[in-house]
Amino acid sequence: MEAARLHEYTEEMSEALSIDEVDRPEVTRSDDVVVRVQGAGWCQTDNHIIEGMWTDYVEQDLPMTLGHENAGEVVAVGEEVQTVSVGDPVICHPVMTCGECRQCRLGEDMYCENLAFPGLTTDGGFAEYLLTSERATIPLPGGVEPIDIAPHADAGITAYHAVKKAVDELNPGDPAVVIGVGGLGHIGLQCLDAMSAADIIALDVKESARELAEELGARHTVDPTSEDVPSVIDDLTDGHGAEQVIDFVGADATTGYAPDIVAPGADHHVVGYGGHVHEPSQALVDGEFSYRGTLVGRYTELQELVRLVERGDVDLHTTRYDLAEINTVAEKLEHGEIDGRAVITP
Amino acid sequence: MEAARLHEYTEEMSEALSIDEVDRPEVTRSDDVVVRVQGAGWCQTDNHIIEGMWTDYVEQDLPMTLGHENAGEVVAVGEEVQTVSVGDPVICHPVMTCGECRQCRLGEDMYCENLAFPGLTTDGGFAEYLLTSERATIPLPGGVEPIDIAPHADAGITAYHAVKKAVDELNPGDPAVVIGVGGLGHIGLQCLDAMSAADIIALDVKESARELAEELGARHTVDPTSEDVPSVIDDLTDGHGAEQVIDFVGADATTGYAPDIVAPGADHHVVGYGGHVHEPSQALVDGEFSYRGTLVGRYTELQELVRLVERGDVDLHTTRYDLAEINTVAEKLEHGEIDGRAVITP
Amino acid sequence: MEAARLHEYTEEMSEALSIDEVDRPEVTRSDDVVVRVQGAGWCQTDNHIIEGMWTDYVEQDLPMTLGHENAGEVVAVGEEVQTVSVGDPVICHPVMTCGECRQCRLGEDMYCENLAFPGLTTDGGFAEYLLTSERATIPLPGGVEPIDIAPHADAGITAYHAVKKAVDELNPGDPAVVIGVGGLGHIGLQCLDAMSAADIIALDVKESARELAEELGARHTVDPTSEDVPSVIDDLTDGHGAEQVIDFVGADATTGYAPDIVAPGADHHVVGYGGHVHEPSQALVDGEFSYRGTLVGRYTELQELVRLVERGDVDLHTTRYDLAEINTVAEKLEHGEIDGRAVITP
Amino acid sequence: MEAARLHEYTEEMSEALSIDEVDRPEVTRSDDVVVRVQGAGWCQTDNHIIEGMWTDYVEQDLPMTLGHENAGEVVAVGEEVQTVSVGDPVICHPVMTCGECRQCRLGEDMYCENLAFPGLTTDGGFAEYLLTSERATIPLPGGVEPIDIAPHADAGITAYHAVKKAVDELNPGDPAVVIGVGGLGHIGLQCLDAMSAADIIALDVKESARELAEELGARHTVDPTSEDVPSVIDDLTDGHGAEQVIDFVGADATTGYAPDIVAPGADHHVVGYGGHVHEPSQALVDGEFSYRGTLVGRYTELQELVRLVERGDVDLHTTRYDLAEINTVAEKLEHGEIDGRAVITP
Repeated sequence: MEAARLHEYTEEMSEALSIDEVDRPEVTRSDDVVVRVQGAGWCQTDNHIIEGMWTDYVEQDLPMTLGHENAGEVVAVGEEVQTVSVGDPVICHPVMTCGECRQCRLGEDMYCENLAFPGLTTDGGFAEYLLTSERATIPLPGGVEPIDIAPHADAGITAYHAVKKAVDELNPGDPAVVIGVGGLGHIGLQCLDAMSAADIIALDVKESARELAEELGARHTVDPTSEDVPSVIDDLTDGHGAEQVIDFVGADATTGYAPDIVAPGADHHVVGYGGHVHEPSQALVDGEFSYRGTLVGRYTELQELVRLVERGDVDLHTTRYDLAEINTVAEKLEHGEIDGRAVITP
Repeated sequence: MEAARLHEYTEEMSEALSIDEVDRPEVTRSDDVVVRVQGAGWCQTDNHIIEGMWTDYVEQDLPMTLGHENAGEVVAVGEEVQTVSVGDPVICHPVMTCGECRQCRLGEDMYCENLAFPGLTTDGGFAEYLLTSERATIPLPGGVEPIDIAPHADAGITAYHAVKKAVDELNPGDPAVVIGVGGLGHIGLQCLDAMSAADIIALDVKESARELAEELGARHTVDPTSEDVPSVIDDLTDGHGAEQVIDFVGADATTGYAPDIVAPGADHHVVGYGGHVHEPSQALVDGEFSYRGTLVGRYTELQELVRLVERGDVDLHTTRYDLAEINTVAEKLEHGEIDGRAVITP
Repeated sequence: MEAARLHEYTEEMSEALSIDEVDRPEVTRSDDVVVRVQGAGWCQTDNHIIEGMWTDYVEQDLPMTLGHENAGEVVAVGEEVQTVSVGDPVICHPVMTCGECRQCRLGEDMYCENLAFPGLTTDGGFAEYLLTSERATIPLPGGVEPIDIAPHADAGITAYHAVKKAVDELNPGDPAVVIGVGGLGHIGLQCLDAMSAADIIALDVKESARELAEELGARHTVDPTSEDVPSVIDDLTDGHGAEQVIDFVGADATTGYAPDIVAPGADHHVVGYGGHVHEPSQALVDGEFSYRGTLVGRYTELQELVRLVERGDVDLHTTRYDLAEINTVAEKLEHGEIDGRAVITP
Repeated sequence: MEAARLHEYTEEMSEALSIDEVDRPEVTRSDDVVVRVQGAGWCQTDNHIIEGMWTDYVEQDLPMTLGHENAGEVVAVGEEVQTVSVGDPVICHPVMTCGECRQCRLGEDMYCENLAFPGLTTDGGFAEYLLTSERATIPLPGGVEPIDIAPHADAGITAYHAVKKAVDELNPGDPAVVIGVGGLGHIGLQCLDAMSAADIIALDVKESARELAEELGARHTVDPTSEDVPSVIDDLTDGHGAEQVIDFVGADATTGYAPDIVAPGADHHVVGYGGHVHEPSQALVDGEFSYRGTLVGRYTELQELVRLVERGDVDLHTTRYDLAEINTVAEKLEHGEIDGRAVITP
């Protein structure tokens, strides 16, 4: 079968991946599941992987097929698989977990001690077929197409996971700030609107993104290139600050807003990782605020997100590309030329 | 009456405060309370105030009497005061709060929108008498002496507050790291031991502090000057990391341990403010950990700490000094020459 | 001034209260507030008070002016009142609290150890003027009329409080059952819809109430007089049961649904008090479910509900009556002839 | 092999079970584990099963081998088992779970949709060998003997689970009431003491149990046969009531204490199931208290309890019996003649 593989780390997106002919994966374990990939979302993290930005955090063995936002149809299952059958349309949670370690038993899939992450640590979904496991597959309800929902497998639940943590701290009418209304941010904003009665303030440098934010439920939008963010937030919140900030950018400039815009005792969630957090300890103490790193969500959170999609609460803007166009997608995203999410259709 | 007052910010601790003759405070509001100060703890924050390190965070009008860890005997009360009477021994919560704003109504005293902080924003307790309010006084149970408990008014509840947040996340046998077993740390460690069944690992550069930590309930101690902290924590936690870290130092070096020693999804509580937090956003994302700033505790938390003292669960090492010796105390603390807490007895 | 007062407990609603001429209340304490009552909601609890159903739970000294859902205009304030001024439109939280006891300090207004409850333990708002206190008044935002919002002072926050506890346990798409879509239920249902993405199932014996429920956001409605409630809930939840049940009726029949309709580990919130809870302990153990009694909400919760009203998320159906018609209202409610909430306009 | 099996429901404990010769279980699935039983605790629930008291709640197919508190040595494993090996000493969580359903994925083992409960719904551990699964086994740390720890597999984690829920609500010095200091109660009391700084009040009708309670950390004990429980609790809590009540009896009389002894907003945990809960809804509303049913704990909670045992925080009083004596044990427990826990050693 064909697969888009990374052979060496590079800054050059136009020749990042090569389309190789590789063996089609087969079932060997009792819980294996093979999926014919119908949609595989391209993610900013794919660019970061290509640049070698994850080598300090995980082990990678090149060449490797990328693609961690996968959905498709089940074509083969191990002999003890119960919850999905051949022919079922499914979305794949991005990690394969053991189900036995303490973290799995606590429901904390992302902390599994024996985790495999297709597209990051093993072969992923920019290919005709993907090897995954029963614990990583969620059957789709009628009317939800694999190709349309694929990006929720990572972008979606990452946004959902951050929002869910924020919602736990938000009362009706509390001001909540969303920084960055791009691929993740526009999903997060819809989740926030569906799951709370918070007053949403959205920041983005692009006018089109701010307009989208208003359509999706933001009460106020701010342009950080022309407005003084702390003073605008101060005005909008009667001097109180934001009860929660969800930062889908994570750059030096955006994490630097925290001491000035986060309400006492509240949180600045770091989702994007475009830079650093850097503040005096005294600033965190004086405002009693937190920088809370946030990772991909749990399997059960992807179930919940699928329900939100089925309810019509979360809408995703996608554009489809052939596997052959994959480096073009990489390059376009690098230059900010993709609106919504790109989905590869192998 | 005599009061130890700051006239200008200085690095020179030997002449930091001057003993002035000032008017004794009087009751003017219905909820005013005047306390004859019997014990007033000296705190690292007093050194920081003298150095001008709080001018960016709060408004200060010099000259000002310092002292925010106060306990003594009630000598006068406003006409609507119900919960304390003349003659009662009391410990004073460090802030005077309005009881009307939303933050007060939520129980969040430290976020009161009309807060006064004696010793930081108004005249404090290094004086014969202190003006405070009903909402800032807690009657002491029999057998608890004001002079012995005074440092709990700030050092104590700051440590308690951080520990209480950590305890909410700790299961029996979970590893918890305490960084710094000094004035706050040795209180925090005892609270942690009383309130949880966590396995406590204590870090301190001083051998005497590590020995004290073992007496007070630590299972393991680490000397960061001679041991590699991340690898020791890794060994002690079977590669898992610490479920909670309470950092009573807050220096660049100690906050920098977080990516290597905090378990996934866990917290590094920043209590001390000796430096900065500085990490790539990606480190917070990859480990899904948080830097959680932590401030002085609530009034109800001081009530709970008084109960712990009464139960015999928390012991405080104090040394007494006359008001006249106050600059000597300032200087000694600056040079790390005070064991336990110094209490001024005006 | 005129006031509608209860002189003796009776089952006879048509002559329950008498309109007496009494002294207008005056400010005596520093935090007193006198409100000219513009709207005072009539509540099922008023009928229960008249019947003597509260004498086992609180102390009452007859004659007493009833009315605990009050809103109006401030006409006098004590000398230390800061948060409201003469002329301000306000809604009154139903209880006057001391602000000093541990429960108040925790934010738990309803558990105040020195609580006064106008209309239940002291004179209430079925009168031209009401004596209340600063801690019981909330200024209304522009555009919100006292007369329209009055019933939220008790009916509203009772419903809101129960819903808020339920929302803490509800994930998107989780089934939530609302029993009773009357005065409280129709508010609760709107709060639930605004604050969560739960799938709402509403039960009511009246067709008009079920239709209202659908308009307000219920996905499914059930008629317990013609349908088998457990089997319908079973079907609607794929055999799983309801993740939360909010029971605004609290009758023997409705609390008796719990073992059959509550999901494992979930809650049956008892808001109405029309009967008993009665089940074998083994039923609670086997299903690990809870019966959670729920009382009037906190001051801060009334603030949050006012925000929901201001946002347009909660709409209240009211009908206005003169003070002279008050016994007619009592009688009509007794016979289920009031749609929405009756508001007395003294 | 020999196994003690129930052939028909009976009230006659002296001939409840018969020792049958049955086939030794074998591995057939990839995750099967066969354990040579070294200790199997006898539980009050075994008496209830024999009486047929569980037929309304679960499906049982007689004859069935009882025994759900099992520990021993692994003698065979399925081909994909990773976390235990032949020869390992293990304690068995009482239920075998699928690891795939949403409840399992949330960490809620007891709510598994495909659960098997050896000794309640399939063959249990009153036999030489037990068939269980990888997800139900926990390796024991060095120094912990299977035969000593066996009763923790059900009695232990049921007590631990209830206590853990209570501890979440308890501040230092808060009064907590433990009703019944028998098999479960004496474990729960030790957990409560290790995991919190609550002030423990223990109720038991037996003097020896009250004495044991004091040794294990209770500050006060109450004899309900000679003392008026509500007034004693009232005195001991300054009129406030107990912040948490853990009722290991669950009889009509003990659940009936709730309205009089539970503090506002607090919980009465129903662990034992000796009777009913029966109160007016108004009592739950007025006190805003909950009856919270509580079931066996999770797999991860059994891990935590094993840690408490290893730390020396929880001590278990056991007496050993041969398999042949099993009906004697049943009879003795029925008559309250077993101190601590009986462990069968097949």
